[in-house]
Amino acid sequence: MIHIVKIGGNVIDKPSLLDSFLEAFHRMDGGKVLVHGGGKLASNFLERLQIPVRMIDGRRITDQATLEIITMIYGGLINKQIVARLQALGTNAIGLTGADANLIKATKRPVRQGIDYGFAGDVEAVDANRMKALIELKLAPVLAPLTHNQQGQLLNTNADTIAQESAVALAASAQVTLLYCFENRGVMKNPEDPESLIPLLTPSLYEQYKAEGLIYGGMIPKLDNAFAALAKGVSEVVIMHADALQNWGSPHFAATRIRLA
Amino acid sequence: MIHIVKIGGNVIDKPSLLDSFLEAFHRMDGGKVLVHGGGKLASNFLERLQIPVRMIDGRRITDQATLEIITMIYGGLINKQIVARLQALGTNAIGLTGADANLIKATKRPVRQGIDYGFAGDVEAVDANRMKALIELKLAPVLAPLTHNQQGQLLNTNADTIAQESAVALAASAQVTLLYCFENRGVMKNPEDPESLIPLLTPSLYEQYKAEGLIYGGMIPKLDNAFAALAKGVSEVVIMHADALQNWGSPHFAATRIRLA
Repeated sequence: MIHIVKIGGNVIDKPSLLDSFLEAFHRMDGGKVLVHGGGKLASNFLERLQIPVRMIDGRRITDQATLEIITMIYGGLINKQIVARLQALGTNAIGLTGADANLIKATKRPVRQGIDYGFAGDVEAVDANRMKALIELKLAPVLAPLTHNQQGQLLNTNADTIAQESAVALAASAQVTLLYCFENRGVMKNPEDPESLIPLLTPSLYEQYKAEGLIYGGMIPKLDNAFAALAKGVSEVVIMHADALQNWGSPHFAATRIRLA
Repeated sequence: MIHIVKIGGNVIDKPSLLDSFLEAFHRMDGGKVLVHGGGKLASNFLERLQIPVRMIDGRRITDQATLEIITMIYGGLINKQIVARLQALGTNAIGLTGADANLIKATKRPVRQGIDYGFAGDVEAVDANRMKALIELKLAPVLAPLTHNQQGQLLNTNADTIAQESAVALAASAQVTLLYCFENRGVMKNPEDPESLIPLLTPSLYEQYKAEGLIYGGMIPKLDNAFAALAKGVSEVVIMHADALQNWGSPHFAATRIRLA
């Protein structure tokens, strides 16, 4: 059983939330992989260095100077701080990018409709055997959102995608659960009502909620991705608050669990 | 047979020298570990961010802000760029600090004679079994000059020391050669005369050259360290130009080889 746990930048930006999350991650049994996003630190640094931040539809345009800062902050500072904290707790973490051990190969995103995202990577292949070999050494990989093209170029890569592609690749030879931790309790029927959490989504419930207009907008591509991961062998996808990880495995655990049945 | 190869900041600062060095490193057979120093990039960044650089006797005083920049640049940018380049050549490199996989535990250097080096680490233990397990997975560890205290604190650590302590630890169960690459051909009888390279140093030759005044000053602690590594089981220590690595194993190889006999 392998758990792939993804935390977003919002968790990284809140030290007390990050600390309690890491404690809960430390207490998880079995093989585990942590995938982290970036947070505000990179943007703050780009600002301090007067490197312009350019975004299109919420995605960063990664020019050479931006890639260097991202490599420093995601691959260096954030990754190593998380590793050092997990080591202090007793989890034998190993911080890696997709270039390390050739774990995740990507291709530079092609220019489409005149939009050049720069050094942004689309994942091509995850070396699940190598990742599993590290897990079998009782190591917990901590993956930064960076990959490479195997020709010497590092690439800025979406952390959600790294988590999902890693889960799918590992699912070929292991039971894999994929947990997305963010700052909401899960998928809500009504975002204004914290009691409206949807505890379970199956394909039929998903179709029903979409038809009823309860699930719409930006949630749909995220959930389509989750169901695609299930179709490719991942046992379960969970959408949850980072704070809920401490209840993982207990009856108090509350989140949206996504399963084929 | 494991080779531990250390390159200093001077090699990192010269892209063409670094490229040819990495090609030569790639061509080395058997288990191998690359240890890299920092170079000027960290100082340049500290300057751009107006963080004062403080040194005592050539050693950096590592305050919190400096440690963060060093973690970013040594553990992030330089380490991952080297890994990506080695991957492009076909060497399956894995970039690590001493915190990763708990490879190198250190203690914060105590304040002595009123000098506080800040977050500087003195190496306490290298997990040779774990490092060997990675090498047995056909991975080539690329070590950044950072360790941790196993209590969550990263520590800036001398790359020569990391190379030496790793070599000694691995020597308990493997044949280990330790290569220090810098910008001179080796130990010279006369620094002005490139033909005066000392090709071999044994304990008796070392004593003789010291008595003759041919070896003196800053070279003595370095060579004392090399002989200490040999006494602890390292097979050979080599002091060499980074460019000479391409001739490693060939009759054209020229450097100072240090052996017990």
